[in-house]
Amino acid sequence: MSTQAHPNATELDLSDVLQALSDPVRRSIVAKLAREGGEVPCGGFDLTISKSTRTYHFRILRDAGLIAQREEGNRKLNTLLRDDVDARFPGLLQAVLGE
Amino acid sequence: MSTQAHPNATELDLSDVLQALSDPVRRSIVAKLAREGGEVPCGGFDLTISKSTRTYHFRILRDAGLIAQREEGNRKLNTLLRDDVDARFPGLLQAVLGE
Repeated sequence: MSTQAHPNATELDLSDVLQALSDPVRRSIVAKLAREGGEVPCGGFDLTISKSTRTYHFRILRDAGLIAQREEGNRKLNTLLRDDVDARFPGLLQAVLGE
Repeated sequence: MSTQAHPNATELDLSDVLQALSDPVRRSIVAKLAREGGEVPCGGFDLTISKSTRTYHFRILRDAGLIAQREEGNRKLNTLLRDDVDARFPGLLQAVLGE
């Protein structure tokens, strides 16, 4: 089991975060994670895109500090870093997700 | 005097808006327009970039529906379409601008 690198809360960059959220597929991933509130495996998203494109989108989200990913067996589990993002950019996820 | 085309409030696309706001130069333009609250000529922004790059950034903001531009003599005047953006995506500009 290993957790893959993502920026700390204090290192979150608004340009990276907005860039990551500017894509509708990535917003749908973030929205599902926000709804579920816990870990969701990569295969748990209803995405009609290739595996490599899916991997790319998850990497953009992780590099921006929006999600954490950890490997467990042959699965990759995703969590929304909601507290970090909310602390750094209050109201942003709420506005983007239309909550 | 002419006003250049920008999307109507109902046509605003979240992906386009977030993409436009993901650039720090464009955010600085939006932040100044938000502070001033009225029309600001293109030359009124303290931007250390070439005229063509500046024109490009203003076009991205206009195409996303964040600003309106109108020509008056040899000046181009910019206005933040705050009401439209706030109505369509409540809290977004506030969160992005850290207000």
